[in-house]
Amino acid sequence: MSELNNISHFANPEAAEAAFYAAFRRCDLQAMGRVWAETEIICIHPGSSVLVGREKVMRSWSHILTNAEPPTLNIEVVSRIKQNGLAVHVVEEHLTPEAGVPESTVIVLATNIYCLSTDGWRLQEHHASAASSKKPTH
Amino acid sequence: MSELNNISHFANPEAAEAAFYAAFRRCDLQAMGRVWAETEIICIHPGSSVLVGREKVMRSWSHILTNAEPPTLNIEVVSRIKQNGLAVHVVEEHLTPEAGVPESTVIVLATNIYCLSTDGWRLQEHHASAASSKKPTH
Repeated sequence: MSELNNISHFANPEAAEAAFYAAFRRCDLQAMGRVWAETEIICIHPGSSVLVGREKVMRSWSHILTNAEPPTLNIEVVSRIKQNGLAVHVVEEHLTPEAGVPESTVIVLATNIYCLSTDGWRLQEHHASAASSKKPTH
Repeated sequence: MSELNNISHFANPEAAEAAFYAAFRRCDLQAMGRVWAETEIICIHPGSSVLVGREKVMRSWSHILTNAEPPTLNIEVVSRIKQNGLAVHVVEEHLTPEAGVPESTVIVLATNIYCLSTDGWRLQEHHASAASSKKPTH
């Protein structure tokens, strides 16, 4: 790994988000770890309970990324809000777990929260849920 | 309705959140409308697609609250982040749609985003998803 790959000072939320999805696409657990903030992080995977703290969150990403086929993952930004050191992005993830099998594509909605730390912008929360076209029931 | 009920100037995100869940508990569509911001709002109900804008979001709440039995709804705060005029709350909603039937209780995870406007704090985004104890698959 070159030294460049160890740089994780993201200049804005968009750079942190690009790194998050790049790590996801490459199944790169180390890069994924560098995107997340150091403390008080929260991750909600689709249909799952809430994970709080780096240990639990990174264990879940290890479970997802280790020995997985790199997925095809396209992102559409729904909205962005930013004030000072806090940013909220809502994105649609078009995720195809099986390469070359477009029928396996699922749409996941994610709310991503970024915070500005002394090490640049980091991911503080990722809340993801499977989307469907059915009527809302809450 | 007294004049007091028409006041919707929430002094902080906690007050807006209390009003949101009070409106949900009472199935009060008007009160629900006063909690949400005027523009660029986003709502993701569990398992549903993303709704953008007041018209679509309020139509979905009308569908949920109209002719519904007031649910039992208990809230546990998981985390709160606030910077200037933007706040992010993660909460667990313990929702019992059928009064007196605790077996019908479901746990919903919500990320609620609040923004400070000239009219006080308002709900800008509500992202809710059903939680389960199964392992994350993303």
